[in-house]
Amino acid sequence: MTDHDSLIATAHALADAAREAVRPWFRRPGLEADNKLSAGFDPVTEGDRAAERAMRAVLAEMRPDDTIIGEEFGRTEGRSGISWVLDPIDGTRGFLSGTPTWGVLIAASDASGPIFGVIDQPYIKERFWGGLGQAQMDGPFGPRPLNVLGSRPLLDAIVFTTFPEVGSAAEGQGFHDVASKCRLTRYGMDCYAYALLAAGQIDLVIEAGLSNYDVQAPIAVIQAAGGLVTDWQGGPAHEGGRILAAAGAEQHAEALKILSNVPLD
Amino acid sequence: MTDHDSLIATAHALADAAREAVRPWFRRPGLEADNKLSAGFDPVTEGDRAAERAMRAVLAEMRPDDTIIGEEFGRTEGRSGISWVLDPIDGTRGFLSGTPTWGVLIAASDASGPIFGVIDQPYIKERFWGGLGQAQMDGPFGPRPLNVLGSRPLLDAIVFTTFPEVGSAAEGQGFHDVASKCRLTRYGMDCYAYALLAAGQIDLVIEAGLSNYDVQAPIAVIQAAGGLVTDWQGGPAHEGGRILAAAGAEQHAEALKILSNVPLD
Repeated sequence: MTDHDSLIATAHALADAAREAVRPWFRRPGLEADNKLSAGFDPVTEGDRAAERAMRAVLAEMRPDDTIIGEEFGRTEGRSGISWVLDPIDGTRGFLSGTPTWGVLIAASDASGPIFGVIDQPYIKERFWGGLGQAQMDGPFGPRPLNVLGSRPLLDAIVFTTFPEVGSAAEGQGFHDVASKCRLTRYGMDCYAYALLAAGQIDLVIEAGLSNYDVQAPIAVIQAAGGLVTDWQGGPAHEGGRILAAAGAEQHAEALKILSNVPLD
Repeated sequence: MTDHDSLIATAHALADAAREAVRPWFRRPGLEADNKLSAGFDPVTEGDRAAERAMRAVLAEMRPDDTIIGEEFGRTEGRSGISWVLDPIDGTRGFLSGTPTWGVLIAASDASGPIFGVIDQPYIKERFWGGLGQAQMDGPFGPRPLNVLGSRPLLDAIVFTTFPEVGSAAEGQGFHDVASKCRLTRYGMDCYAYALLAAGQIDLVIEAGLSNYDVQAPIAVIQAAGGLVTDWQGGPAHEGGRILAAAGAEQHAEALKILSNVPLD
């Protein structure tokens, strides 16, 4: 098995393990009430932790020398040069609300940034992955290649963000200035919006205030599908912050023209 | 077969037929491009039409004497006293964007309003139905009863609407005045938000400018699960317009206190 094959096999094993660990927590009856009644027990965080624990167990078995950077249990230093950047539940508010648009995010990264990523939706059993020569999804319609829409003007574009506020007041204004030039604006999808961009459904995802574990898997998947992900200055985005993901060069350039003028906080 | 059994069996047959008819149109590669290139061909509307046609064929077979009120093909008068109120794709913008949160809406109504309703999500293969003594869902987790969360203060509540603008400026202000008192506000779910309310996941759905086919199925499902659906004055909502759906009396009363002051356009 080449190192690439090992990374790809491990990423899917992680997604399988997280999917199995997190499903029992989703829409669990009484989840909310339990959360309110007992100060030390946070069922949503329990779902997060169960999924990250399951993924860490897989890594201990399959890739014990890699670094782990997980949202729940922090950083475990390795010595292989490969890091696994894990968000066991991206979209906790959506998870809590019962929407099927949160996801498990898994990225394998080297010094250059993410090289392979997985976005998994455990309830639908839908998975999007990309990098190391692959760009693919699997789900209710079976396996399909991932290809972004390609370049087209903002006038024709569909733009997504999770919350209409989009970070600070200035960041929100920047987003809405872009959105006002687009054909359609939609909200509320969390990481699922990145998957839709990679799958050729939408043109732009614009977010602010993200962490590295929120973006590394989406970056790998979208780039593998032919899209672009940068920060709002056009630079690398894999450390998080302000994110501009685009299905083509034209949407990216038009959005960047506006977003690059948003002052830093 | 009693008339109730016939209505329930017909509603599921309609949902099965619509699901099969609409799935081939969802995330169809080139859907957008086709739409732009040929003036007379609207693939999304073709998806709508295929689903409504399939449902009308089922009704012609199973309940030929009932009235049909469909979003795409209008009203077909019957003489049984039962009307089928059909929205083949509720959430066309979500459908076009590839989100899994649009749905097929089916209601059986008599002179009093909807008596049985179905909300079906064809991609996830998830179905929520209620009325005539039933309140149930089926999907990736198998069959489950539907029960709303029950009464609790807005302070603990999760509120949904599809677009942050929510109709007119005054209506939008009314929504945001309610939302500012809630724990969590989410957007973008179309009819799926009503299903989440019936399933005990969220507290409020507030919308404006709806049609009868947008609301009749959700009303039947939510009422069967123990929830309340009224207009913003507390009156019947089954003709559409301004909608307030609540998981309990307390959320409903607190929201109504604010929304009932919103002036009519």
